[in-house]
Amino acid sequence: MDTICLNGEFIALESARVSATDAGLLLGEGVFETLRVERGQVLFAEDHFARLGRGLRILEIPFVVEPENLLALCQQVVDANELEDARLRITVTRGPMRNQPIVAREGEPTLVITATALDARMDEKRYRGWRLVMAPHPRNHRSPLATVKSTSYLESSLARRYAVRLGFDDALLLNTDGLVAETSVANIFLVQSGLVKTPPIADGPLPGTMRGRIAELCGVAGVGFAEESLTVEDLLAADEVFVTNALIQVMPVVAIGEREIADGQTGACAARLQTALRARIDAELRERWS
Amino acid sequence: MDTICLNGEFIALESARVSATDAGLLLGEGVFETLRVERGQVLFAEDHFARLGRGLRILEIPFVVEPENLLALCQQVVDANELEDARLRITVTRGPMRNQPIVAREGEPTLVITATALDARMDEKRYRGWRLVMAPHPRNHRSPLATVKSTSYLESSLARRYAVRLGFDDALLLNTDGLVAETSVANIFLVQSGLVKTPPIADGPLPGTMRGRIAELCGVAGVGFAEESLTVEDLLAADEVFVTNALIQVMPVVAIGEREIADGQTGACAARLQTALRARIDAELRERWS
Repeated sequence: MDTICLNGEFIALESARVSATDAGLLLGEGVFETLRVERGQVLFAEDHFARLGRGLRILEIPFVVEPENLLALCQQVVDANELEDARLRITVTRGPMRNQPIVAREGEPTLVITATALDARMDEKRYRGWRLVMAPHPRNHRSPLATVKSTSYLESSLARRYAVRLGFDDALLLNTDGLVAETSVANIFLVQSGLVKTPPIADGPLPGTMRGRIAELCGVAGVGFAEESLTVEDLLAADEVFVTNALIQVMPVVAIGEREIADGQTGACAARLQTALRARIDAELRERWS
Repeated sequence: MDTICLNGEFIALESARVSATDAGLLLGEGVFETLRVERGQVLFAEDHFARLGRGLRILEIPFVVEPENLLALCQQVVDANELEDARLRITVTRGPMRNQPIVAREGEPTLVITATALDARMDEKRYRGWRLVMAPHPRNHRSPLATVKSTSYLESSLARRYAVRLGFDDALLLNTDGLVAETSVANIFLVQSGLVKTPPIADGPLPGTMRGRIAELCGVAGVGFAEESLTVEDLLAADEVFVTNALIQVMPVVAIGEREIADGQTGACAARLQTALRARIDAELRERWS
């Protein structure tokens, strides 16, 4: 049976319970992170913990992220479930409310950490690439939550469901000004004349942890990198398009709707960035084990 | 101790627990309704149940609203807590997920019904009126959730917290086109030359249950009613402004930020609509008891 961490305790998933008045349940008041685990090791925990801390401060949830303690809890969940390649999720909500809307009891946030094996087909998809569909609704880049990975996640869930129902891998979200923001689960990039471009945070993408590593990876791979507002036409006219997040890492995009990107094949730049990332992760894991 | 209804069972609040992998907790996948109870009776249940059903269908949560059964559960929560004037909340989430993001087990939604005594100061506030502040962020009227009262409620919670922190009663939200949408918890109306106006649903207000009764109340009170896009300037130049929801009913607004509406006093039209509502509720309660 799966073991999860609930408020620091390790419990069988089936018996892990939270209050029916948790502000996370009733009002979507929480933040979360999805981390990748490879060979039993949590990757880029510091990036995720930094974003988690920023989100908690914006929401004024009084949970203090202590990186060493939190990483130890994450690692124990991975170990307890004997996982090698896995997705790990950390959720922190405002916790149980007094039986009143909006007014949460302060000081008792809820912490949930779960981990499950990764489907190997996710990585294999990198050889064929993702196909995106345009989401039917825009993302509000001026929302106070635009930069927060919050558990008020329904808009993204609906966009994702829409894409999957139509047979696509994900949905492309424009912001309310009509500029490219992100996909429902990933940041988006194009490659044009050897330069990698992605929308600035002001245009509405979530500040993804893998997005934050792209400048470094571009340096290793010997390609230029710039933040720049993008239109759908820019994407369609690009030499390559790819998306990134902590789980899929660098995933080529071969089509948007019925329109193929370039020749409809996965691109060379995305492959080089994934190779650079692979080397970066391998070096880090070697260092931990030495 | 407070009693709540959880999936049809009546349980002490302190021991009511849901799965730590409930999609409501982890991804904000749920809908809710807040109903007013007067003299121990649930008001306008049919309006709330209709909206609940619409939200569930948009979210594709397979919970069937059976009005008679649901009302009986609501009434039992009210009775168990011996409440006279109360706020009652119905929450339905997608329920426990397989230990995988986004993929919920189908067919097991979570139902939570809570009720708490109303603070009498809420009604007394009608004599002084509310003061609103401009929210610092716009509401996305083109969101798929614009018409859904969902538990992905964090944007509204943050706007509400912002207002309360600054000493106001609520925050006024414009949509991403700069037009008036609603407040964080209520629909907004102005009165100009004897005509009541409110923004159309396309401009981003949640279709409030009390908003849905306003045309009827205007008819009784002998004032005209129209849906029309509104600007902040329209509100500031109005003879009166008021807001409505199921709990506060018809609440005068006397100021937006530092700007008073008309003479800064509560308005006559809002009072007449509240009187018409009062009579409507009294007639309904008499009928139930006869």
